[in-house]
Amino acid sequence: MTNPQVALGPRTREQRLADTLAMLRTPARDAWVATASVAADGTAAPYLVPLSLAWIDDRVVLALDATSRTGRSLLASGTARLSLGGTRDVVMIDAVLERSVRVVEAPEELAEGYAAQADWDPRPGGEHDLYLVLRPRRVQAWREVDELAGRVLMRDGAWL
Amino acid sequence: MTNPQVALGPRTREQRLADTLAMLRTPARDAWVATASVAADGTAAPYLVPLSLAWIDDRVVLALDATSRTGRSLLASGTARLSLGGTRDVVMIDAVLERSVRVVEAPEELAEGYAAQADWDPRPGGEHDLYLVLRPRRVQAWREVDELAGRVLMRDGAWL
Repeated sequence: MTNPQVALGPRTREQRLADTLAMLRTPARDAWVATASVAADGTAAPYLVPLSLAWIDDRVVLALDATSRTGRSLLASGTARLSLGGTRDVVMIDAVLERSVRVVEAPEELAEGYAAQADWDPRPGGEHDLYLVLRPRRVQAWREVDELAGRVLMRDGAWL
Repeated sequence: MTNPQVALGPRTREQRLADTLAMLRTPARDAWVATASVAADGTAAPYLVPLSLAWIDDRVVLALDATSRTGRSLLASGTARLSLGGTRDVVMIDAVLERSVRVVEAPEELAEGYAAQADWDPRPGGEHDLYLVLRPRRVQAWREVDELAGRVLMRDGAWL
């Protein structure tokens, strides 16, 4: 008997891309969002939180308070590294901040797109609430060790 | 009919601590490990990878290559932020590097402890392979919004 759930060797790039996009489009999908800041003594300080994510026009969209630690770090450094999926079905995204949009001023398309995928709607939004639109620069996807080769799906912002 | 799997309101602190320790002791448990470095231009750069973890004598033990990005960042900054569990059954650990031990020189107790819990054994280990022993400073555990209050289980290195 064969079981279609059992992975038979590494996935093709096409399959990994399809799986990755499916993951990015999943309703109520959370990501682990890693950011970094420079402490007063000059050392680097990591931060990490789970956040709801929406995938809109090939961009990762987060909604958060500009004064939160993740908000401040992302606005200052302009970079984040996100993971989706489990530690053995990994999608990693290195992204740069493309733009930030105040929730109270957001275009309908962005706000509706976020609310449609995330499991909450930040509107009407307070003074500090932002949508952060992140542009992926590098995307990697792998499950087990046999998928480490070929794990890069996007490089320098372009799908391979 | 009642379903014992359905959570009825927030867990007590005792239950969260028990669940957290159970998670930390789970064989073949991976953590998301966030570290940070300071880039050449002075901005902070985040990094994030899944790594196998062992919980030995109230310490998180990782095994990695000192020249990997996570290894370099952790050795330079001395701090990491780790998550275990899913994005809706979260355990967050802010930890400091207590010591690093070369795999080739590691005491039996450390190496056996790591191998017993992780799903691999870094021994005999190459020139750059290290065990990194991390001391938790802050531990938080929460599932849904109703558990955000009371999520701190350890503060300044002491269980509450």
